Amino acid sequence: MASYQAPLRDMRFVLNEVFKAGEEWASMPGTTEVTPDLAEAILEEGARVTRAELFPLNQSGDAEGCHFAAGKVTTPKGFKEALRTLADGGWFGLGGNPEFDGQDLPKMLTVAFEEMLYATNASFALYPALNTGAALLLDHHATDAIKRTYLPRMYAGDWLGSMCLTEPHCGTDLGLIKTRAVPIDGDSGYAITGSKIWITGGEHDMVDNIVHLVLAKLPDAPAGTRGISLFLVPKRRVDASGELGEANGVVCGGLEHKMGIKGSATCVMHFEQAQGVLIGEPHQGLATMFTMMNYERLSIGIQGLGLGEVAYQSALDFARERLQSRAPQGAVAPDKPADPILVHPDVRRMALNVRAWNEGGRAFAAYVGSQLDRAKFHPDAEMRTDAEALVALLTPIAKAFLTDRGFDATVEAQQLYGGNGYCVEWGAEQYVRDARIAMIYEGTNGIQAMDLVGRKLYKNAGAHVARFAAVVREDLGSQAPVGLEDFHGACQRELARLEEVTAWLLDRAQQSPEELGAAAVDYLNLFGYVAYAWMWWKMARAAQAGLDASGAAGESFYRAKLAVGRHFLARMLPRSEALARQIEAGAEPLMALPEDAFYPRG
Amino acid sequence: MASYQAPLRDMRFVLNEVFKAGEEWASMPGTTEVTPDLAEAILEEGARVTRAELFPLNQSGDAEGCHFAAGKVTTPKGFKEALRTLADGGWFGLGGNPEFDGQDLPKMLTVAFEEMLYATNASFALYPALNTGAALLLDHHATDAIKRTYLPRMYAGDWLGSMCLTEPHCGTDLGLIKTRAVPIDGDSGYAITGSKIWITGGEHDMVDNIVHLVLAKLPDAPAGTRGISLFLVPKRRVDASGELGEANGVVCGGLEHKMGIKGSATCVMHFEQAQGVLIGEPHQGLATMFTMMNYERLSIGIQGLGLGEVAYQSALDFARERLQSRAPQGAVAPDKPADPILVHPDVRRMALNVRAWNEGGRAFAAYVGSQLDRAKFHPDAEMRTDAEALVALLTPIAKAFLTDRGFDATVEAQQLYGGNGYCVEWGAEQYVRDARIAMIYEGTNGIQAMDLVGRKLYKNAGAHVARFAAVVREDLGSQAPVGLEDFHGACQRELARLEEVTAWLLDRAQQSPEELGAAAVDYLNLFGYVAYAWMWWKMARAAQAGLDASGAAGESFYRAKLAVGRHFLARMLPRSEALARQIEAGAEPLMALPEDAFYPRG
Repeated sequence: MASYQAPLRDMRFVLNEVFKAGEEWASMPGTTEVTPDLAEAILEEGARVTRAELFPLNQSGDAEGCHFAAGKVTTPKGFKEALRTLADGGWFGLGGNPEFDGQDLPKMLTVAFEEMLYATNASFALYPALNTGAALLLDHHATDAIKRTYLPRMYAGDWLGSMCLTEPHCGTDLGLIKTRAVPIDGDSGYAITGSKIWITGGEHDMVDNIVHLVLAKLPDAPAGTRGISLFLVPKRRVDASGELGEANGVVCGGLEHKMGIKGSATCVMHFEQAQGVLIGEPHQGLATMFTMMNYERLSIGIQGLGLGEVAYQSALDFARERLQSRAPQGAVAPDKPADPILVHPDVRRMALNVRAWNEGGRAFAAYVGSQLDRAKFHPDAEMRTDAEALVALLTPIAKAFLTDRGFDATVEAQQLYGGNGYCVEWGAEQYVRDARIAMIYEGTNGIQAMDLVGRKLYKNAGAHVARFAAVVREDLGSQAPVGLEDFHGACQRELARLEEVTAWLLDRAQQSPEELGAAAVDYLNLFGYVAYAWMWWKMARAAQAGLDASGAAGESFYRAKLAVGRHFLARMLPRSEALARQIEAGAEPLMALPEDAFYPRG
Repeated sequence: MASYQAPLRDMRFVLNEVFKAGEEWASMPGTTEVTPDLAEAILEEGARVTRAELFPLNQSGDAEGCHFAAGKVTTPKGFKEALRTLADGGWFGLGGNPEFDGQDLPKMLTVAFEEMLYATNASFALYPALNTGAALLLDHHATDAIKRTYLPRMYAGDWLGSMCLTEPHCGTDLGLIKTRAVPIDGDSGYAITGSKIWITGGEHDMVDNIVHLVLAKLPDAPAGTRGISLFLVPKRRVDASGELGEANGVVCGGLEHKMGIKGSATCVMHFEQAQGVLIGEPHQGLATMFTMMNYERLSIGIQGLGLGEVAYQSALDFARERLQSRAPQGAVAPDKPADPILVHPDVRRMALNVRAWNEGGRAFAAYVGSQLDRAKFHPDAEMRTDAEALVALLTPIAKAFLTDRGFDATVEAQQLYGGNGYCVEWGAEQYVRDARIAMIYEGTNGIQAMDLVGRKLYKNAGAHVARFAAVVREDLGSQAPVGLEDFHGACQRELARLEEVTAWLLDRAQQSPEELGAAAVDYLNLFGYVAYAWMWWKMARAAQAGLDASGAAGESFYRAKLAVGRHFLARMLPRSEALARQIEAGAEPLMALPEDAFYPRG
């Protein structure tokens, strides 16, 4: 059966030993109050509350799903109560602005809690994830009056946010949207009319109001993405005193029937002369929305991580009990009819693959979180700018690589069960279905890759990548610590490979714009491998330090960390070389086939 | 929406141009009657009947599923009628023994029909697939009296076969089974008692009788897999004249709830003093069962292929209509609001990946089919033995590599839809769910890999692999035809890599039995890449010949074939190098972690 305890020891290791979070937080004025004790309390209570409230609703929520009738959406049994418990516990405003009752905690810490949310109940997790992103956007771009009205309620989970971008004819290409916003005479507001699809939490029964952030076009909007504006459109109108008023022209038209995340209400939303308020500047809606989208992209990456972790733990629980055949070296449990399957090298290979993805991803998510914190809290403007550049560069990788690997992890974990993995009762197949969406929504992983090679690489002529390489190289130092030569050498080698491929690609892209698109996904994956090789170097160094300092007490944890890292080096990292070769094959093989030859028939 | 037409042009290409099926069949006494015209008629009518009868039931069958009540299983609406139509059309006895009304057609031809079955309705396809395997087993191992009674009914689809191996505590390790067979006093039969799980088509409402092939232990059975015997246990007893008698002690205890193939009844079966007949020798049941299992393994490989093909065609249909953004070189459809997504290099990459898997797999399945035909029909005993060895070697690869790549294909095709791919109505997500099981059942792909490195490689000290290499090398010749140097060179290089890795592994395995298990899955995948590189060489050569001979008529087909092949060489085949490096990392990284360290908690 599904089994999960938040990996607190590993989270502490990442925070305290790999990234020295205590020192980091003490060094920035905005985070000095975040002591290691406070962080520990949040991790422990977060682990408790998600396990107690959300995990028991995961399989039942999948079986029941959301239901739609007469414009109303009913979430699965227990969701509403669990939401209330978490919201009342203060878990919805962790990173929020303290001026409006947020807790202003560092992202490096809250990513760990997000992982617990997704691991225990990915469908449920999406409601607070969207809400947090929406609140972040309002905090950045809304007027003080709006913030005062909305943010305390959103941090309290009394109202929840949603993000309304996609329309039936356009998902990726938002320049094509048809939703219109017309100024209302004698009012500062707008009347919004149009239909949106795939709106997570667009309508449901858990809170009194839903705060829709809606992309629409003003009457004078230029064509394409430069003509999009962003509006706050509440489900129920809010009067000047902040009290709930009458229903706004916002109607749910139905739910999608999906492969997974069935407890998440994915809505068709119709806006019919709904009253909205402009957020940010006219025609700058897409840029404004990116405040939320970048937040969600990291969050969705963590969906991959959380599902990979719960899939690992559940599969290992199965593996411990399941007896099949004998170890290749002879029986290890001669008193039993067969040995536990973990004696088999190939079962270990699968388990180690999953674990190495998870632990690499956990460190990487924390690293991106730490850079978000620097960008927000660091007193030195140059440090903030540097951190922002790294975040910009790494966000598409965090979204796509963590979700691709998270999906791989759930598939590999499912394989470990044999036939049981395909049967619903064990829960493994749900993790695969729930993880699959993370590669698609919030910008498909192909779109993330285009963002990486386009905006984050080509547009600045590789400056962000060069900065990343400098950071890694400084971290590596010139001399490998004794005993860690393999981690150090692998990271150096992979970084050099990335730099070579980057230079090649920048050069090639001058010749043809098709080269960027042709390389994009393989380049993102290559970058992901390099980033994880760096994370494994950092973790190996911290594990070695722990081993040197701990004596027998923590020994098994640190030795395991090094062993998992060496599995990564030996049996996963070699794939980067293939990616480099695939990239260097260039666009020509992709473009050679005429379009009509893609449809062979008869 | 889902879209499929059997890829007849490509099937003809594989049969007639790549493998010269007409010459092959004309050269063997048992197949001389199979003319190209007959083959063509079977392909065309097979394409028609599967598309008309099975494809419309695919999504409805998934939505409805099978239902269990009071010991009875109801299959989805339309399945029973479709089964009757196909059976009456003679489609269930295609490869059967002509002495008992089978049609004795070559496997190289029938694999194409199997692909159509799986592509149009994977759930449905399993009923005839199990039946054909069961009939094959009886034809090899049963007495003439039993064959006379059962085979004509099974070929006619009046009765269907099932395969009863797994028990709750053992799937892979069949030595642990507890089902018992006790001789019945004064009778040649046995009373079978025990429970089996995951029995595809174990009970359903489509036919009058179900022919269970059941593994059980005789009272004097030695422990382990050497103590298993095989019994024919009909759902309803059959009297001496072959007429249906009373119910046997065979009871369905329920259905599994599964991730996919929901139209396939996966049953818990209880045998309660059920009367059975021993098939084959006592205690040789597993060897006897392998006649069926080897058949099913190739068949399940084709499940991966069929689902990859229908996923490709459906995704391309979507891609043709979907307009998003502009081509990197500038608008190609300036009159439309955006360009069709196939202008984007990364969309092409996904489509070409899927197509290259499918076309490589189609050729490989035909090749294995051709060797099965030689093993059965060739007049020269040495040729038969040679072919048998190749079939033994390639069967685990056909099962595992085709299903792994089939799953990859369905996932990549789903990605091509963006968010629509996750919504049930489009059908793409069903293909992913239906393909996932193929990596698990019929021996997990890990077990296939163990079979490959154990029985098929190590046990004969690499003789089968050496034979395979000799066949490939002879086919390649020393000189590459002008214009095909890339295909020729890649195949030579990959074959050399496989030989090197094989020699390394045979040597390593002497030192520790763990090395085989550690290498198994990566070795199977490496072998798969090499086999596909060979298939692409063969296809490229045939395409070039077609191009030279055809003039303008077939030009676009052949040019497309070469382009897809070059995509395979440039952007997929590089992965083989990573696999080789991963294998050569050896068992140590997998075995380093102590068992208890796999369970990090708290």
